[in-house]
Amino acid sequence: MPEVHIQSAFDRDLEAIQAMIMKMGGIVETQLLDSVQALEERDDELAAHVRATDKQVDQLEEQINLEAARVIAMRAPIATDLRTVLTVLKISNNLERIGDYAKNLAKRSVVLGQMPQISGAAGSIRRMSKAVEQMLKDALDAYIHRDVELARDVRDRDQDVDQMYNALFREFLTHMMEDPRNITACMHLHFIAKNIERCGDHVTSIAEQVIYLATGEMPSDSRPKADATSAQPIMEDRG
Amino acid sequence: MPEVHIQSAFDRDLEAIQAMIMKMGGIVETQLLDSVQALEERDDELAAHVRATDKQVDQLEEQINLEAARVIAMRAPIATDLRTVLTVLKISNNLERIGDYAKNLAKRSVVLGQMPQISGAAGSIRRMSKAVEQMLKDALDAYIHRDVELARDVRDRDQDVDQMYNALFREFLTHMMEDPRNITACMHLHFIAKNIERCGDHVTSIAEQVIYLATGEMPSDSRPKADATSAQPIMEDRG
Repeated sequence: MPEVHIQSAFDRDLEAIQAMIMKMGGIVETQLLDSVQALEERDDELAAHVRATDKQVDQLEEQINLEAARVIAMRAPIATDLRTVLTVLKISNNLERIGDYAKNLAKRSVVLGQMPQISGAAGSIRRMSKAVEQMLKDALDAYIHRDVELARDVRDRDQDVDQMYNALFREFLTHMMEDPRNITACMHLHFIAKNIERCGDHVTSIAEQVIYLATGEMPSDSRPKADATSAQPIMEDRG
Repeated sequence: MPEVHIQSAFDRDLEAIQAMIMKMGGIVETQLLDSVQALEERDDELAAHVRATDKQVDQLEEQINLEAARVIAMRAPIATDLRTVLTVLKISNNLERIGDYAKNLAKRSVVLGQMPQISGAAGSIRRMSKAVEQMLKDALDAYIHRDVELARDVRDRDQDVDQMYNALFREFLTHMMEDPRNITACMHLHFIAKNIERCGDHVTSIAEQVIYLATGEMPSDSRPKADATSAQPIMEDRG
């Protein structure tokens, strides 16, 4: 069997897996948007829908993993090809985790529906999640087209998300210090903001996989890290 | 080549991978214990050590993934054997994530060193992490010996960890409501408690993989879930 034939069979297999990744990405994107909409509009039905969709995402991940294993077993790819298949496992795992965070967000939005509203919070969270959702869309585009520039752009934009998170963290602290009745709601909102920030990290990880696939190297400039609240005291205690 | 020969070559490969899993598990266990000790004793040097160890854990995960791919490519395992190799990928990912949480904990412990101490918090967190560390040890034992009973026991114990977390969540809310000067420290401590609770979830996932490997079925009784704070309002607003 001529080598070109084997190669193109591998390519076909890979395309099929990539199509599943795109499908999974589409569902997860929707989950993220829906969960934040449910939060903003206090829509418990939509929140329930987001939670129900999680099963579909888990099944897709499982299917992708099995298919990848099948391709490795059938085609015994080496070097770059093997790397390409292994990347699929990482990306599907990143997507599954983003879906998980959306599910958690949907759960909390139902709880928050019974609490006093924190002014401005839902809007800020929507802007933050919108940024992450756009990053996700672009990361998947970059993946399909092996577009290194776009992937680098996605990676850079994660810093904006981190900044939005840090600003929200300060906002929530202020609300809590001003009025203890806000504390419980702010704890939940803080979790939500943190989880969206983590979604951004997972999208960044997808972008980095794309850069790795296209260039053979992981981006070397260590990414300006993330959550400043774990690395420094954000706010002096007061009161 | 007689089938028995192929089979035992696969077994030898698998044993080598399992040895790497055990090594990784040992390092992660130590990370978890050390990070909590660093928190309790305000030991920044130990915290730095935990953070430095993370690279080693990441490399082991990478090595395990590559080795698993090599085994799939070389031996083309099917059915149970394929499942066994794929399980390796999941378990190493669970371990890597526990290591990540320990790293994050170590980072926060340095920040907390500069804040007022919250009475009783470090002790409660130590007890919680000790429970998780014991679960991890047992889950890895159960994995090596395919010990379903032990794996089920680990899974059940996760509920204790969840209860410890819920109790801590209430405690932190109380401290914050009593004195706004505690808010920043409690936010960090709450994150730490939540992350240890998540480590428990990852250990549970390892235990469930063991049950799956040994019985061919994922435990069906849906696990009494975890973090009650995302599913119900823990505390009425007051004040």
